[in-house]
Amino acid sequence: MGIPDEKIFPHATGRAQNLVHAREGAADLVFHGSWFCPFVQRAWIVLEEKKLNYQWKEINPYKKDKEYLAINPKGLVPALTQKGVNVTESQVIMEYLEDISGPDVRMHPADPLQRAVARVWMDHIAKKIVPCFFRVLQAQESDKQKAAEKDLLAGITEFVEAMDPEGPYFFGNWFSMVDAFLIPWLIRQPAALKQFKGFEIPKAGSPVWDRWGLWMESCASRDSVKNTSSDQQHYLQILERYANDTAQSEAAKATRKGEVFT
Amino acid sequence: MGIPDEKIFPHATGRAQNLVHAREGAADLVFHGSWFCPFVQRAWIVLEEKKLNYQWKEINPYKKDKEYLAINPKGLVPALTQKGVNVTESQVIMEYLEDISGPDVRMHPADPLQRAVARVWMDHIAKKIVPCFFRVLQAQESDKQKAAEKDLLAGITEFVEAMDPEGPYFFGNWFSMVDAFLIPWLIRQPAALKQFKGFEIPKAGSPVWDRWGLWMESCASRDSVKNTSSDQQHYLQILERYANDTAQSEAAKATRKGEVFT
Ligand SMILES: N[C@@H](CCC(=O)N[C@@H](CS)C(=O)NCC(=O)O)C(=O)O
Ligand SMILES: N[C@@H](CCC(=O)N[C@@H](CS)C(=O)NCC(=O)O)C(=O)O
Repeated sequence: MGIPDEKIFPHATGRAQNLVHAREGAADLVFHGSWFCPFVQRAWIVLEEKKLNYQWKEINPYKKDKEYLAINPKGLVPALTQKGVNVTESQVIMEYLEDISGPDVRMHPADPLQRAVARVWMDHIAKKIVPCFFRVLQAQESDKQKAAEKDLLAGITEFVEAMDPEGPYFFGNWFSMVDAFLIPWLIRQPAALKQFKGFEIPKAGSPVWDRWGLWMESCASRDSVKNTSSDQQHYLQILERYANDTAQSEAAKATRKGEVFT
Repeated sequence: MGIPDEKIFPHATGRAQNLVHAREGAADLVFHGSWFCPFVQRAWIVLEEKKLNYQWKEINPYKKDKEYLAINPKGLVPALTQKGVNVTESQVIMEYLEDISGPDVRMHPADPLQRAVARVWMDHIAKKIVPCFFRVLQAQESDKQKAAEKDLLAGITEFVEAMDPEGPYFFGNWFSMVDAFLIPWLIRQPAALKQFKGFEIPKAGSPVWDRWGLWMESCASRDSVKNTSSDQQHYLQILERYANDTAQSEAAKATRKGEVFT
């Protein structure tokens, strides 16, 4: 059995540690995050892409501290505070950051119809890809793992087929909300799925998987992604608790019950 | 046992029938909907509030016709087609309609921070209120029904406490996306919950329930809501299949498994 949830490693490591140190000073925009959380990293990537000024506050969301519950009664990270207003939910925060920044750092298409397309695929990522990562990792029986792997590959295939064919990003040569919405899982899960579950998502070998490999490499090598990432061994320590199904996060509990956690 | 899903009553009745007839003509914006669907009504209310020009196409989403699967591969209503692009998911459609219409018919706050607040509460409605309606209605054992009722009342209470205290709407005297996002369930569910499950949500009797009653009455009496509503007896016929847990919709199947359907 792994470490209990509230005893997780307390702070960012690697490149993310440098960034956290640089973001200790007070700012109008306060970003409440946890170094390990992929939902947090989605919004963190957007803050970095847009070069916004913000203060990082490290939260251990499993402790359910009173002060943090006053900011987000649901007890989840991320949350963002500005002018005394608390904004929760990764996607809501991302849309807010888009709304307050100028056209030079746009991460949604300018055309409303294409913006709607971006949101359709964010919905697909939330419902058809991310929950499958949790399901594969937490599966304790081989038939359940196989079913989850199949759903994960189907969800990814549908997503890849909607991408701009040349890429490298979802919308072509331009990194958008859609990319930031999924890439955090690809920073964490592949090593854990391989080590704990013997499963690998193909990265090449067919038009779909070649395109997927290109997308993943291109997103993973952006500064905004690298600078918000911690060392692999620390992610692995957290994900081990999912792999042996002892994690007690809301996501883990929902997955255990067969629910889709978004 | 109720009627099978694909045999549901085929068209709108009451006021919605008039509206559907008025919306038969071709238009740039094609709205694919089902008269009975609360997710559809969310976006339909927005189309009406904004007085947009659109063509209504009645879809039976349980038939999974090839032509409709080409528009939404997930097979769900609503979907909206414009310039050959298909937009799915009720919330994505609502945001799109906001994006293409002017400030005189705004349904989101103009201030980005308040717009984020609106989206936080739409997320709450999607995850903490709507799924509870399905759970109460489909519960076949009294302890499960009681647990679902408790969660429903808790979800509503939290929502009411976030409302502008005077009202009548969520943001005060102005009908917004947040209101449109929830009211369709209050048009359908109370009669079904009472008739099939002997359960009533209070409408008065304490500050929370007085405020709730005011909100509900005010939303329900808007033209955009009344004009998109069919006769109660037809809603009841659909909801009976949920009440005896024979419905086979994605929502019903998810609820049966203990999942949160958003
Ligand atoms: N829907 C939320 C999910 C956020 C979430 O689940 N964060 C996790 C950390 S990765 C958390 O706060 N967990 C605390 C808990 O589960 O108790 C979002 O998109 O922001
Ligand atoms: N998340 C979707 C849900 C839409 C939905 O579930 N619609 C139902 C009708 S009320 C449907 O199309 N059901 C077809 C099925 O379940 O097979 C949205 O918000 O638009």
